[in-house]
Parts: sequence; C-alpha cells; structure tokens
Amino acid sequence: MASQQVSEHPLQLSSYSKRVLLKTILDRPDGGLGLTGERVVIGGWVKSSKEKGRNSGAPQSPPSGNASEVPAASTQGVDVTCSEVIQARIPPCLRSFVRIFIGGRRPSDAPDPTKKAPSMAYLLVNDGSSVSSIQVVVKSSVAPISQVTSPGTSILAEGLLKQPSNTGKRVIELEVENILHIGTVDLTKYPLTKTRLPLEFLRNYSHLRPRTTMVASVTRIRNALAYATHTFCQNHGFLYVNMPVITSTDSMGNGETFQVTTLFSEAEKIEEPNPMNDHGAINLEVVKTAIKEKSNRVQELQRTDSNKEALLVALLDLQKTNELALQMEEREKAKPGTSFKVGKVDFSEDYFSRQAYLSASAQLHIESYACALGSVYAFGPTFRTKDSHSSRHLAESWMVELEIAFAELEDAMNCVEDYVKFLCKWILENCSNDMKLLAKRIDKTSMDRLRSVASSTFERLTYTKTVELLMEIADKTFETKVYWGINLAEEHERYLADEIFKKPVIIYDHPKEVKPFYVRVNDDGKTVCAMDLVLPKVGAVIRGSQKEERIDVLSTRIQECGLRQEMYDWYLDLRRHGNVKHTGFSLGFEQMVMLATGLDDIRDAIPFPRSHGKLTC
Amino acid sequence: MASQQVSEHPLQLSSYSKRVLLKTILDRPDGGLGLTGERVVIGGWVKSSKEKGRNSGAPQSPPSGNASEVPAASTQGVDVTCSEVIQARIPPCLRSFVRIFIGGRRPSDAPDPTKKAPSMAYLLVNDGSSVSSIQVVVKSSVAPISQVTSPGTSILAEGLLKQPSNTGKRVIELEVENILHIGTVDLTKYPLTKTRLPLEFLRNYSHLRPRTTMVASVTRIRNALAYATHTFCQNHGFLYVNMPVITSTDSMGNGETFQVTTLFSEAEKIEEPNPMNDHGAINLEVVKTAIKEKSNRVQELQRTDSNKEALLVALLDLQKTNELALQMEEREKAKPGTSFKVGKVDFSEDYFSRQAYLSASAQLHIESYACALGSVYAFGPTFRTKDSHSSRHLAESWMVELEIAFAELEDAMNCVEDYVKFLCKWILENCSNDMKLLAKRIDKTSMDRLRSVASSTFERLTYTKTVELLMEIADKTFETKVYWGINLAEEHERYLADEIFKKPVIIYDHPKEVKPFYVRVNDDGKTVCAMDLVLPKVGAVIRGSQKEERIDVLSTRIQECGLRQEMYDWYLDLRRHGNVKHTGFSLGFEQMVMLATGLDDIRDAIPFPRSHGKLTC
Repeated sequence: MASQQVSEHPLQLSSYSKRVLLKTILDRPDGGLGLTGERVVIGGWVKSSKEKGRNSGAPQSPPSGNASEVPAASTQGVDVTCSEVIQARIPPCLRSFVRIFIGGRRPSDAPDPTKKAPSMAYLLVNDGSSVSSIQVVVKSSVAPISQVTSPGTSILAEGLLKQPSNTGKRVIELEVENILHIGTVDLTKYPLTKTRLPLEFLRNYSHLRPRTTMVASVTRIRNALAYATHTFCQNHGFLYVNMPVITSTDSMGNGETFQVTTLFSEAEKIEEPNPMNDHGAINLEVVKTAIKEKSNRVQELQRTDSNKEALLVALLDLQKTNELALQMEEREKAKPGTSFKVGKVDFSEDYFSRQAYLSASAQLHIESYACALGSVYAFGPTFRTKDSHSSRHLAESWMVELEIAFAELEDAMNCVEDYVKFLCKWILENCSNDMKLLAKRIDKTSMDRLRSVASSTFERLTYTKTVELLMEIADKTFETKVYWGINLAEEHERYLADEIFKKPVIIYDHPKEVKPFYVRVNDDGKTVCAMDLVLPKVGAVIRGSQKEERIDVLSTRIQECGLRQEMYDWYLDLRRHGNVKHTGFSLGFEQMVMLATGLDDIRDAIPFPRSHGKLTC
Repeated sequence: MASQQVSEHPLQLSSYSKRVLLKTILDRPDGGLGLTGERVVIGGWVKSSKEKGRNSGAPQSPPSGNASEVPAASTQGVDVTCSEVIQARIPPCLRSFVRIFIGGRRPSDAPDPTKKAPSMAYLLVNDGSSVSSIQVVVKSSVAPISQVTSPGTSILAEGLLKQPSNTGKRVIELEVENILHIGTVDLTKYPLTKTRLPLEFLRNYSHLRPRTTMVASVTRIRNALAYATHTFCQNHGFLYVNMPVITSTDSMGNGETFQVTTLFSEAEKIEEPNPMNDHGAINLEVVKTAIKEKSNRVQELQRTDSNKEALLVALLDLQKTNELALQMEEREKAKPGTSFKVGKVDFSEDYFSRQAYLSASAQLHIESYACALGSVYAFGPTFRTKDSHSSRHLAESWMVELEIAFAELEDAMNCVEDYVKFLCKWILENCSNDMKLLAKRIDKTSMDRLRSVASSTFERLTYTKTVELLMEIADKTFETKVYWGINLAEEHERYLADEIFKKPVIIYDHPKEVKPFYVRVNDDGKTVCAMDLVLPKVGAVIRGSQKEERIDVLSTRIQECGLRQEMYDWYLDLRRHGNVKHTGFSLGFEQMVMLATGLDDIRDAIPFPRSHGKLTC
C-alpha cells in the first residue's frame, strides 16, 4: 500500500507519520520542480479550492498562491456518496475507516458517482510544516468533488508530482491518484470558511484558529523563539530549572495572585443528598422559615395586645424553634468542608493545609538555584489577577527568567542585550517565510524592526535621566504627567524607544517605591538597582534587577512593603548562608512574540489566552 | 582590578560574571595541569576544608577529592575581624562591600589579625558548573582562616593555578592572592554543614539542597534531559506549543483536580476592620452570645416557674435580639465575597466567572494544535490531587506531551522508542561525570541501565498477552491479583520489565475501562488503542494512545465516563471539522529523571516538590 511505496522514497518522510512534509517539497530552492514525477503521500487541510468542468466548460483559473486571494470554496454539493469510489482504490483494511469519515449511504443505494458532478477540483492544501500550500488536483473519478472542496477539509492523498498543466506562478502540483482519507467539513457549522478572518473573531475559536495561515505562522515563530532561548542559555552555561507553579508566597507581595484549593470540591460534596431531607425531615432552611412565620405571629399578638397567655405560648414555641435552629447550625459547622465561611477561611482543611498561590514569577525560587549552581534559567507559566486592559496583559503568561550568581547589574544588561539580539537574528534566519507573510498581513515594518534591534547598540540611561528627557518634551503631552517618582507608563517607555532613540533602551536605577522588595537599594537610598528593557513598538519586554544581598536591608524592605516576614524566612536563608551578589531578569515571552510577529494584541501571541471573565476551552 | 586581568585571559569566562567556570579548568582532559601559572578569578561555595599550621606544626593532609570523605570543617574560630586585612588587598570601591559581608568590628578596634590564627587553609570549592571541586589554598595573611573554612561559605577569589605542593590525586590547585568576597556561614544555624546528608533530610531544605554535590548533579542531569527533549522534537519537525495551565475542563474527568480562584481574597477582605466593631458597636458574634445568655435566662425562669410576667419580658427581650440577629445575617449575605457558603459556591463571582481548574494534562488542548499543524509537543507543569504515596506521585509534576496528526498507534510506539533511547544516549554522552558520582552514591547499576535501554529493542505486547504472562507466574505472588480487566499496578509492570524481559516493554490495547474517554475504541469493542512504556526500575514512564476520531463513539464514551458533554463541545469540534487520525503520548518527566539518576523518590527528582499537606517555600 501507499506507505510501503513511500518508505522506499528518497523524499524525507514526516517523522512517525507516513507522509511527506510539504516543506520538504515546497521550501526547496527550486520550489519542488526537481521532484517532478515523484510519487508521494501528503496530508493536510484544504485552504481553498476551485472546481472545474461541471459542464466541461473552459477550465477556470486554479486557486492562486495566496489562499486569501481566492473566494471561499464553492459549496455546490453533489447529491451522491462516494464511499464506493474511494473504497475501490484503497486497501480493504482502510475501507471501513474511510466510510466512517465520509459517511453517506451504503453502496447498495448509491447512484452513479460521476453523474452531474464537476469533473475536477484544484485544492490548496497546507500541513502546517510550511507557510506554503501545495496545489492538489482531484478528479471526480478519484473522489466526489463536493467532499473535498470545503475549506478546513482534511485529506490524506497519494499521487504524482507534476508541473501544472495551466499557467500560474506555482511550479509543482500533486495529481491525486488515491485518496486515503477525507475529513469533511459541514460549511453550515464550521466557523473558519471565510479567508482573512479578523483576529478578534478568531479569538472566539482558539481551538480552531491554528488552522489559519496567520496563526500557524505565529505558532511557528513562537516555537522558534522558545528553541532559540534554550539554545542561547545552554550555549552560555545556564542550567534549565523547573520552578514551582504552586507556591506558599505571594511573590510580588501585591495580592494580585490566584489561590489554589480543593476546598470547593469538599464543600460541593455537602450538596450530595442530605439524609435528613431524604427522610422528609426538616432542614435548617425549613426551620428558619418557621421562625419567620412564628415571629410574625408573635408581633401580631403584641400589636393586637391580646391575652398574655397566648403571647407567652407563642413566644415559648418560637423560642423552641430558635433553639433547634441554633443546634442545627452547630451541627453544620462540625461537618467537613463547611469550614470556610464569609471572610474567614480555614485553610488547615485545604490540600496543602495552608494557603497556596499560583506563582506570579519564579524570581524568589530561582535565586536559591543561582546561589548554588551559578547561572540558571526558568521558562514557564506565571499568573497575575492584575486587571489591566486585556490587549496588553493576561492572567496566564509565559516568562523566561535568568539569574546569575557573582554578577552585578551591568553583567545582566550585557546578557539582556546579547539575548534579545540573538532571538531577533534567529527569527530572521529561521522563519523568513513566516516573517514575510506576517509583514504582508500585519505589519510591513516588522522585519526591519528585528534587523534594527539585532544590529543596534542598546541605549542605557538612568531613570532620573529618562525623567529629565521626558519632562523636556514639548511637542507631546502624556496622559500621565511625568515627574521623578512615577512608575513610567507604557506611553512614556514607548516614546523613548519609538521617538527619541528609535532603538532599544535600557532604563535603570528606578525609585525604590516602584520596584519589588528584593531589588538592591543603591547607595543614595532613594533608587534601586533595577533595569527595564524597552523595545520599539512593544515597550518593556524585560524587567531585571540586582538582588538585595544585605540581609538587614532586605528585612527592612520586606517590612516597608507591608509583607509578612515569616513568609520569606526561607528566602532570607539565602542571605544568611554563603551569600553572593546575584542579578537576573525576566522576559515576557508573549511580548517577545509580539515584537517578532508585529501582533498588537497579546491574546493573539499565546495559544489559549486567559483573561478576566474569559475562559473558553 | 581582577576583572580586567581576567578579561585578557585565554580561559573561558563565565558568561556575564567575571570569573572562570571551574569546568573549564577541571574538566579538561589534563585536569587543568596545562593551566599551571595562569592567574584566574573563581567563585563558588566551600564544600569542605582543612586548616594547617595553627602552631606551625607538620602540614596536615589536604582535603581529598571527595568532599564527603573529609570531616566537617574545623570551627576553631579566630576572635578577630579581618576587614582590614582584606581591604588592604582589594580596590577601595569594594571595601565597604566586603565589610558588609564579613561584618565584624571597625578597623579602629581591631587587633593584630595574624595573632593566634592558623597559618593557612585548604578549601574544596565548587561553583555548580562541574561535579569536581577545586582545591583552594588560603593563607591567613590573605583572609582570616575561620571566615572561609565553614562548609557553605561563598568566596570570590583571585589567584594563581599551581601544582599542589603536597602529594595527592589532584593535579592543580588555586593559590589565593586576593579575596574579593566572602559570604560567611553561621555553623550554628546552617543545616548543611555535614556531608552525605540523607535525601529525606535534605527535602526539608529544598531551597538549600542544590548546594549539595548530589542534588547539583541531579539538577544538571534534569537540565540535560530537558534540552535533549527539545533537540529531539525540533530535529523531527515537532513544534513546541505552550498549553494552558488554567482550564475550564477537568481533563481527566476524575475530579482529581485543583481549582483556581480569587473568591478567598474577596472573602478575606471582609476581615478588614469592620466599622461596626471600630465604633465599639455590636457584631453578629456578640449578638449570638447574647442570645445564648438570654435563652438560658428564659429556661431558668421556666424551671423555677416564677411569675409569667418576668418570663414574658425575658422572652420578648430575647425575641428582639433574635430579630436583630436575623437582620444582621441578611446584611452579611448581601456583602461581596459572601457568595460562597457551605456546599454552594457562586462561581459567577469568581475571576473567570466560572469554575477554573489546574490542568492535569495538555492532552485535550494539544490535539487542537496537532489537528492544524501536524506534529506538536508541549513541556509544562501538570497537576493532580491524587493522594497516592508521595514517593511516586506529586501534586505538581512536569510532563512532555507529543501529538502527531495522520498517525496511528504504531507510529507513536516508534516515536516513543526513538525518543527514550535518544534521551539515554544523550545523558551517557553529556553527563558522564555526574552519572559516575550518582552511580557511586545512589545506584551502581544506573549507567548500565541507561546503556541497556539505549541499545535494546523494546518488547511490544498486548495487555491481554501481558495478563496471560503474569497469570502464569508461579514463583511470585502479587499484592493485587492479576486478571483480565485490572488496571495493572506498578508491581506488575515492574515485574515484566525487571524480571521477565529485563528491558523496556510497551504494553498496548488495554481494557477501555482503565483508560480515559478519548482513547480510540478497538474493533473488539472491549479494548482501546492505548500503550504504556514500562522501564526497568522506574516502571511506567510514558502513557500514550491513538485518539478516538469517530465523533459518535467519542460522545458515547464521554457519557459512559459520566462527564458533562457540554464541557467537551469545543473538543468535539476537532472531530466535526477536518478530522484526522492522530496519536500521541506523555512522558512523566520526573520518572525519566529517576531512571537517569537512579533516584527512588520522586520528591528528589524535582526542585521544589509539592505533595499533600506539604508546601514549604
């Protein structure tokens, strides 16, 4: 069967999937021309299609190179099933399998498959390995055209590579001889049939959007940035360490953290059938209703000033009921899972027997590894409840964090500059086709920007100098007025990189009030040993600092920041014993993806965005 | 100063830290001999030490190669400070800095530093870049011996590389001329002064344990396994995708998931000073106490059968209090954060306006990327509340997950075999020194095991055949009796790999009852298209499956497993539109670390272990 023929094939097979990756055909310097006459199996999803010769009319032009330039596929269906046509051409073992996919009636009641059907279709098929799609020619004698023309349809097909019969820019196409699989699309239900769908729309379908040309390119670039990061770090002797997601410390000390719990599931269990109710016996709610009624009765008796006997009886009765309610409440309190109530949660009942948070940064933990092994890095998810506008912030975002022992802020600045340039060069060298597409679709200047970042010497200036510069600006008014002491806003940072220096800028020595407690206090006592890397277009992508190594100063800072000292006792151990100067920084990975792709919204830079009130999939 | 001298140095500097990595000296084929006479700056932590010549006696033998073979450092302190000694030898800019670290009195009141002090010390210093430590010779004229001899002390020192004066196995040592930094250790407080501390003990200090020789080696091997994973996947055209940690689906459908919330912080806010209390006014608790007292008074009146007037008054008074309590409860209910109460939680108030979980696996989400881009992989943390014995399971563990489109189970088996062999070869080639140490300390057979896994052809047999084999076993009784249908326990899997085949075994086609809903049902209707890779010593490290692509069968399975269909609607979309056969597997990363290192407890295979009731750091 097909797989054997292909396994003897010189072309590179997809690892662990018996097909040829399209990039090995289309991304060759000759565009695949040299493979003319080769027999291959390819698999992928239809981007667009054109039918031909319904009435054996003049051939229509085939779909052009850019999927987006052709209209959505014709949906003129053929009212026949094709099971038998395909089954005639594939090994028995696959027949039932194919029938399952393409559905339709059993051979018994199937009419002549060629009747009324268009004679052939040109499909553009993409398999995710390349930004390019291959033109696939399917004759109605191989498969019913209506089954394969819908965008999103998956096909596994065997055929011959040949030069296109018709004139067009593509140099090679696949003439299908054998369809091994069709995964149909119901156009009435599939949301991605139109081309060039806006990113906002695609966000509603984060489980399907990687099938679009653009999101696929973003995914390949994100992959490249991640691998480039590992390569850079490993080349420079950094050890990769997996830092915990569940932590006992609110690492930012700003309360913007999620909590992790199993208390709810405990509590929900209480909802299971309550024996008291099952036996039709009274429960607390019933009693409380009774109390209300009896109270009303008492009040009425008081108003009407009727005989005291009746009032007394009513009151005694009411009191009994009140006592019952009291007892029942006591019992409720004794149950498991009932331990959390308004404003007071008993975390001794929780999974970790204490409060547990989702880490907002690996910072504190990674220092313990840097202070043992020298240079380390982490790459993992971090979490913030911070509720700023969701086009710039996510509840869950990935962060690359490096920490270097025996290093000071200048060392980290050098590392930041080398690292970011390395990433930009890597993308330009390894993702040129994806970059070209994104430049065309999103931001024409994105490649120039990467080149400029890769080649320019980063500007380095103090926060104080930065504020002076910004205050001198006459021709621009900022939403937030600039003065020494403010936490520079995106508008300020962007203006520096975009307008003033037109290149990456490292701002350092910020006021201690705007930085976390662990940043080293400078000798002036006012500023701390921090730095931010601001890039054109995307703003601050890296925040770093030299850590406060003096335990007395650190303790003071913890108190100043209103944090609970005992929470950080283990962290202070790193200063108590075998203390060293150390410095590090963290890169917002989605921000880096935005720089590389030119995307404007962070929700498009991560596969499954998580933001306030939004949790689909 | 030192840094300049070093920057002209042929030796490789640590990236972004002005010192020479010890591995560039000690891991040379000549052990560093060729570097005799070189001037270097090194930084690291003291593993062990020996003092010499307190009374200019005969030289004691220096510390031997293995830190563990020497006793804990002598703690004979010198009752002097050494600030001035060091300051005399270092640039002025560094003096205050050094004074901060080594503390002690001001020069003014300092006596003669050489008085009564031992004349020199031999230190074994390690910087995490290599398993080997360098012998560092410090004369009392350079630094007070008592400051540098404690294990755990950090030093940054400049000196000359020379051949050891004394006979010993080491070929090179550093004669210190200049101490740039000392991070002292208070032996009375530092927990890691003893050598060869048991791993159980070290677990109590996960923030300090990477400073031990063994945990450092485990960390370097874990780093190597991670980089090898990325290298393997990238070489085979897999795209790295970051799958979400916060999900809307309990992916295993077994309820063993953590929940993520901000409701507690809302609720906790209620605890902030309550205005009513501030003004000394009553709160609900006070009222409830009053009710109890008044009830007692009423009961007393009833018992003593005193005049009805008094009773009536008491009852009316009590009733008023009851009404007040009722009103206050109503008010409480109206407050924010009060929305969750026993057995009923209102998640519309929560951050995501719905229940949110910590992902137990990237499985469901990664399929949406495989069904768009072909071959993809994820490497991230996963979470289970599963409460089995903590030496085998963690609440937070890292998982490598691969998914391949247009692939069937056999393809994934081939991938599993190549991947695991690749990892074993990588460790043998890149971590030989660490492996040698761990073989000596933990498991002598671990290197042979890696070699055998790397070279053997994995056994592949069905679950049914496996059960038959195990039932034939006469000379071994299992805790859990074996019969067709059971979920094979570790004892069964281990026996297969350790005793019967003595090599890796892939068990496939399990009963559908023991596998998740998304595993493809085989034609027999009883078994599913799943596989487990069982390795000698560690048991099952990989679980994989071909996914159920038939939407009708999948829906039935979701119902059979008692899951809520609507939760998986987005997942079913992948079957509705452009459906393909796809297959994948997940590797328990800590289990792989255990195989490579020979560790027996999973808590030692991850930097910060998370298990039930345990959350330090």
